[in-house]
Amino acid sequence: MAYAILLASCPDQKGITAVVTDFIYRRGGNIVDADQHTDMDASVFFIRVKWELEGFLVSRDRISEEFSSVAEQFSMDWRISFSDHVPRIAVFVSRHLHCLYDLWFRHISGHLPCDFRLVISNHADAAFFCAQAGVDFVHIPVSPQTKDEQELRQLEILADRQIDLVVLARYHQILTSAFVDQYPRRIINIHHSFLPAFAGGSPYAQAYQKGVKIIGATSHYVIPELDQGPIIDQDTVRVTHRDSIADMMRIGQDLERVVLYKAVRWHLEHKIFCYGNKTVVFD
Amino acid sequence: MAYAILLASCPDQKGITAVVTDFIYRRGGNIVDADQHTDMDASVFFIRVKWELEGFLVSRDRISEEFSSVAEQFSMDWRISFSDHVPRIAVFVSRHLHCLYDLWFRHISGHLPCDFRLVISNHADAAFFCAQAGVDFVHIPVSPQTKDEQELRQLEILADRQIDLVVLARYHQILTSAFVDQYPRRIINIHHSFLPAFAGGSPYAQAYQKGVKIIGATSHYVIPELDQGPIIDQDTVRVTHRDSIADMMRIGQDLERVVLYKAVRWHLEHKIFCYGNKTVVFD
Amino acid sequence: MAYAILLASCPDQKGITAVVTDFIYRRGGNIVDADQHTDMDASVFFIRVKWELEGFLVSRDRISEEFSSVAEQFSMDWRISFSDHVPRIAVFVSRHLHCLYDLWFRHISGHLPCDFRLVISNHADAAFFCAQAGVDFVHIPVSPQTKDEQELRQLEILADRQIDLVVLARYHQILTSAFVDQYPRRIINIHHSFLPAFAGGSPYAQAYQKGVKIIGATSHYVIPELDQGPIIDQDTVRVTHRDSIADMMRIGQDLERVVLYKAVRWHLEHKIFCYGNKTVVFD
Amino acid sequence: MAYAILLASCPDQKGITAVVTDFIYRRGGNIVDADQHTDMDASVFFIRVKWELEGFLVSRDRISEEFSSVAEQFSMDWRISFSDHVPRIAVFVSRHLHCLYDLWFRHISGHLPCDFRLVISNHADAAFFCAQAGVDFVHIPVSPQTKDEQELRQLEILADRQIDLVVLARYHQILTSAFVDQYPRRIINIHHSFLPAFAGGSPYAQAYQKGVKIIGATSHYVIPELDQGPIIDQDTVRVTHRDSIADMMRIGQDLERVVLYKAVRWHLEHKIFCYGNKTVVFD
Repeated sequence: MAYAILLASCPDQKGITAVVTDFIYRRGGNIVDADQHTDMDASVFFIRVKWELEGFLVSRDRISEEFSSVAEQFSMDWRISFSDHVPRIAVFVSRHLHCLYDLWFRHISGHLPCDFRLVISNHADAAFFCAQAGVDFVHIPVSPQTKDEQELRQLEILADRQIDLVVLARYHQILTSAFVDQYPRRIINIHHSFLPAFAGGSPYAQAYQKGVKIIGATSHYVIPELDQGPIIDQDTVRVTHRDSIADMMRIGQDLERVVLYKAVRWHLEHKIFCYGNKTVVFD
Repeated sequence: MAYAILLASCPDQKGITAVVTDFIYRRGGNIVDADQHTDMDASVFFIRVKWELEGFLVSRDRISEEFSSVAEQFSMDWRISFSDHVPRIAVFVSRHLHCLYDLWFRHISGHLPCDFRLVISNHADAAFFCAQAGVDFVHIPVSPQTKDEQELRQLEILADRQIDLVVLARYHQILTSAFVDQYPRRIINIHHSFLPAFAGGSPYAQAYQKGVKIIGATSHYVIPELDQGPIIDQDTVRVTHRDSIADMMRIGQDLERVVLYKAVRWHLEHKIFCYGNKTVVFD
Repeated sequence: MAYAILLASCPDQKGITAVVTDFIYRRGGNIVDADQHTDMDASVFFIRVKWELEGFLVSRDRISEEFSSVAEQFSMDWRISFSDHVPRIAVFVSRHLHCLYDLWFRHISGHLPCDFRLVISNHADAAFFCAQAGVDFVHIPVSPQTKDEQELRQLEILADRQIDLVVLARYHQILTSAFVDQYPRRIINIHHSFLPAFAGGSPYAQAYQKGVKIIGATSHYVIPELDQGPIIDQDTVRVTHRDSIADMMRIGQDLERVVLYKAVRWHLEHKIFCYGNKTVVFD
Repeated sequence: MAYAILLASCPDQKGITAVVTDFIYRRGGNIVDADQHTDMDASVFFIRVKWELEGFLVSRDRISEEFSSVAEQFSMDWRISFSDHVPRIAVFVSRHLHCLYDLWFRHISGHLPCDFRLVISNHADAAFFCAQAGVDFVHIPVSPQTKDEQELRQLEILADRQIDLVVLARYHQILTSAFVDQYPRRIINIHHSFLPAFAGGSPYAQAYQKGVKIIGATSHYVIPELDQGPIIDQDTVRVTHRDSIADMMRIGQDLERVVLYKAVRWHLEHKIFCYGNKTVVFD
């Protein structure tokens, strides 16, 4: 069954939920999920509503047009998506492939509804796996000298394949602003620490040196500032003095996989709203 | 600021959210929190809405009457509560007092908004603490021979003090149906295992014998069947072969305290809806 | 570098650690890991010691013989293993393949040091994956009528391949005692609940009906009694009223994968000691 | 029953465990707990051994002297403690009293074996509680102008009462080096974030601004550099966009209490070894 999904935010005031749900109800829509949130400090209201397209009296290509009067009334920042649109994703990896494997097997198990179209890497390690899995693999080596040029090539490929979402699944290159700005709120990264602790390189080595008793992983949207984008999900796990850096890397992989997967899944389900440099996740 | 809180469930159909929120909006109400849930299997709809009484055009003693037409339209099981009503609670304990201490200190820290009126115990251990804290303490010893009679005495005291909620904070007596039936969905118990595992007596000893690697705690509403009532919250913690039964008891207390507290707090905030033998917690 | 690993238990008495470590020290051994535990209730002592073979004055084929006098002195139940022996494992699956995928990718990532030799299934679903991965796949359909005969066939194959450890990675057939008795403490199963809760079939459906707020997974050695063997590891995760049975199955898979993996890894590293129906895990 | 507890570290080499356990065994000691750890990077060996004093052939006042030859042989940094020595602790608080309450009730429940002698505060809030509990309370207001002088007064009181361990249970004053240097590795602080994230003031507000999805707490030994001392324990808990700063403070308190308690308990049990700026916790 297909659904329409409204994600909206606006200055808080009375009656927003009533007007939005009434809009849907009067057009024959059956709401299957509704969630709202008010940021009391900022006085901003957020709403996510999901309703059945079947029986809805407005055809899907006219829904946004009709809703725009409601949106204007409340000065909304909004979008309406449809659950049967299958987003196209490209996964960027380097040499650690556990997140790629994980996303792929969740995908073929039906838990990551997307068009898993493309893997791009600065190394050749993932080529064999992609060949077996039947996923396009593009090897684009990157050096400091070739970075700008290679990013242009990456962007061309992404545009050519009409990619909706870029997933950095342990891609060990820092993307330039020029790249990031092409996909605002559409690049998700996994960082292998509980940000803001241990941003930058070698977070497990940093954690080991510091002697922390928990390690973590963070998925976030990418902005030009390294490891500073809006956090989508985080998780942590206990370590002890017995765990070497290699142990932390191994143990942390289990976090990275789940934390990245959840972020990608929520994005695909239109459950994430960014504002300021934070996220509202309507889980 | 005072709020009205509607908790309702009904057979699922279109338009419930729209009609409910419209009811509030048209009477000048500002909704500050709204949550809904649909049990797809049972086709049952649940809603919780919280709105400001200030500015609401219906006086509080007439709200339920006005809302009853909406409730009838959807065949709702419902109630409306007011956030400034301070519920009166009675805490039953035996000899383990950690949950009592915990509830009390959360109460005086402002995290458990209630009238912490009364402690009843079959032992005298809590008497000194209650005297210091300034809480009424009633010592009612219970033996198999005197149980029925003593329960009557307990019920008299609860009625006399107009107790809204009974909290069994490690009360090691099994209440009879005669008692339980007087406070349906208004008695919360903490059981020191992750139910349904290790129901009944000595759950830590059972867990130790079984060799489990996690232990847990469960808060639930009490029904006549022992440890079988609707589960409100649960949590678990890792143990190892090094932990003796005494260690498990000590470690488990940290779970018991939090799991019981959360259940009591949610109950006081009108966030729990029971149906069948399960709960919906609008956390 | 190669190591010898002693796992032993015996009635508790003075001096065991001293005598054991002295035995190794006097023969030039460098202990890199030593752990011990005393079950005070049962008065049983457990020890695990790992030392470098390089520089040890006793050749590996004579170590057990030399140690036997120490073992006799304390009436030990013991074995000495060598870290460079690569155990051969066979993985049994049915239609849910997430645990198989997971074990495989940990294996090729170097985190599961074994000879991943063989997959046996009563369904054909895993055939394609195994072909790609280059792992032998044997399809052995099982019906109530053919079970005994097919188990004999399975046992033949296991014997033929000299399998050391059988991993039931969501294998949905109950093994008979005749089978289990051939591999005592050498069959590891993953059960998708926090045992002892929800033993038997459809544990997620059972959990949903009960309305629990946490679900879990348990890895254990298999004994003839279904889901009753010594527990090796468990973990749990929170669910809410919003989670359907399908959601629980999806969420629970993340537990199953890690909990099974940890059990297999610990077994391969000679870190698990069974006694009674419990385990000591020298993690 | 009384025990001797050896905590030692030294450059790693062969035979340390054997020599240490042999030392105890030959003098009739029954080892009830032994744990060791080797930091492979730094090539440092750590050992903790606990044995029964009953039956030990060396009187307790001569044990250290006899052991010193072993210690010299391996160039150990070491100390031997006795389990029946009851350490005297002083708890410093300001206005948040949840950690004080928690430590106190664990103490009277028998879970924190110490002489809970003294509470010092720069505010009067804890006075009433201390009076009821029968604990000495000293009110020492601190202003920037009076800080040095008041710290001298605090130090006098600590010396006078022969305090072994200072616990900063949400004491909102930064201690000077002059103070800290008097109690090296004998001041434990609770910081309300997962360090190194959000060091310094108002960590919950920092966490809220950053939009993290987990918050944490850290217990550590105090060194002159603020929030930089060796970490003893940490824990984290999930938050969502719905949680205000006030919610985070409330939720985080449950972490703070347990994380501080565990650190204090481990310290009292001689389970913590500091090296570099890290800890080994023989839990």
